[in-house]
Amino acid sequence: MSGRTFITIEDPKDPRIAEFSQIRERDLTGRSGRFIAEGTVVLRMLAAAHRAARDFRAEKILLLKNRVDGVGDILAAFPEDIPVYIADAAVIDAIAGFHLHRGVLALGQRLSVAEPADLVGRLPETSLVLVGCGISNHDNVGSLFRNAAAFSADAVLLDETSCDPLYRKALRVSVGSVLATPYARGGSAEAMLSSLADAGFSIWALSPAGRTELSSIPAADRMALVVGTEGEGLPSEILTRFATARIAQSPQLDSLNVGTAAGIALYSMARAMGRIS
Amino acid sequence: MSGRTFITIEDPKDPRIAEFSQIRERDLTGRSGRFIAEGTVVLRMLAAAHRAARDFRAEKILLLKNRVDGVGDILAAFPEDIPVYIADAAVIDAIAGFHLHRGVLALGQRLSVAEPADLVGRLPETSLVLVGCGISNHDNVGSLFRNAAAFSADAVLLDETSCDPLYRKALRVSVGSVLATPYARGGSAEAMLSSLADAGFSIWALSPAGRTELSSIPAADRMALVVGTEGEGLPSEILTRFATARIAQSPQLDSLNVGTAAGIALYSMARAMGRIS
Repeated sequence: MSGRTFITIEDPKDPRIAEFSQIRERDLTGRSGRFIAEGTVVLRMLAAAHRAARDFRAEKILLLKNRVDGVGDILAAFPEDIPVYIADAAVIDAIAGFHLHRGVLALGQRLSVAEPADLVGRLPETSLVLVGCGISNHDNVGSLFRNAAAFSADAVLLDETSCDPLYRKALRVSVGSVLATPYARGGSAEAMLSSLADAGFSIWALSPAGRTELSSIPAADRMALVVGTEGEGLPSEILTRFATARIAQSPQLDSLNVGTAAGIALYSMARAMGRIS
Repeated sequence: MSGRTFITIEDPKDPRIAEFSQIRERDLTGRSGRFIAEGTVVLRMLAAAHRAARDFRAEKILLLKNRVDGVGDILAAFPEDIPVYIADAAVIDAIAGFHLHRGVLALGQRLSVAEPADLVGRLPETSLVLVGCGISNHDNVGSLFRNAAAFSADAVLLDETSCDPLYRKALRVSVGSVLATPYARGGSAEAMLSSLADAGFSIWALSPAGRTELSSIPAADRMALVVGTEGEGLPSEILTRFATARIAQSPQLDSLNVGTAAGIALYSMARAMGRIS
């Protein structure tokens, strides 16, 4: 950390850290492509994404004073021209608007976001893709990305009614996977699935009423798993047009969290494809 | 809903609904065995648990005025001597201390809680049990119960360092499964696992460094899955004493949420046991 200087913030209203103000109440993303990375794990992923210099860049970092030493190795992974602001607990809580016990925040910017059809066009010969339709809950979107990364999915596609995965909480729940797993968001689920079908993907829509139990899904070189909201599930147009899969479970309770359901299905599909062992 | 009377609350400080005051900031459970059930799904589970009259009873219900008609069938499942308080949105938000858009709350009481060894003694010949060690995160405990219920586990055992599953958020995330799946909490993980081993359980400790991949675990009549915290994992005494299992996943990211990991493992074990299909 030789050349790096730390800038001490004493006024919670200091304009240099305005983007971190009241972060629980608002989300930056959407307006400017800017987003808040929270916690050491996500900060580390942001450093890697910044170095890759493809889709994301880091703009500034704000740390609780007593966390600086603990994250020295992560800071060293950022170029020295990224400003690092430090503040004591009272100031940092006043900035954030709540007690921020982790004390590690960064501001990032999304440089580009792929169109679903373009991303599908760039996928490798052998691919596993997760498609989310109508996933508006930030935790669930984060959980989908975390599980997609855990099971080596090549991409996540979200329709226009799903929330932005760069929302602070989605990014945090994803443990930063949003910054590492290629994704696209936009357009209708039907359009996304059509481009996957055209690209030769074997498409499986997950539903409690699915016709094929998960473990009977035949492996294919290109596989896509489609998940919908917990309440409504996937729209009937998708369930009638594509093959449907279900996860065997208790008849008393047909209710898995969508992130968990996607995790179980991706595990099963990735194993069938021989991608994990 | 013939004989039932509704009591209108106009003062947020009305002592009759004091237990619902500022529920985000505090949790009742522990002190008195009382707990807050939130939302229609959990309310329905509380009605069933109350009728079973074994481990839980309902004490009172507080509803947003405009939700009364929508939950009529659930209210009909409670005896008429359970008071139902109603309030408008401003009053209910002032009571709860935050915007309670669901508008459905109930106060319940735990009548008894089993000791782990006693619960183990009552388990059926063929059993699947989930054991949590050091699960202090409320969402994760809720998620463990939800997945235990989805995959027909007979019981959940939690060591003394795990949090009470009746915490408001744990209960909500469990979609009320805490009120339906037998559980015990207390003592050390070692003591719980010893009583399971004595009862002939095949015990599998889940760990990223586990020796046996999940799908190679041999089925047994009595199986127990043991999960630990996300950060620390299970203590080494458990990992050396018992068989260990891992979930095949990307070598780049060895990180599943503990609830998701338990869901994947329970799915696999319940299938191996022929309990779900």
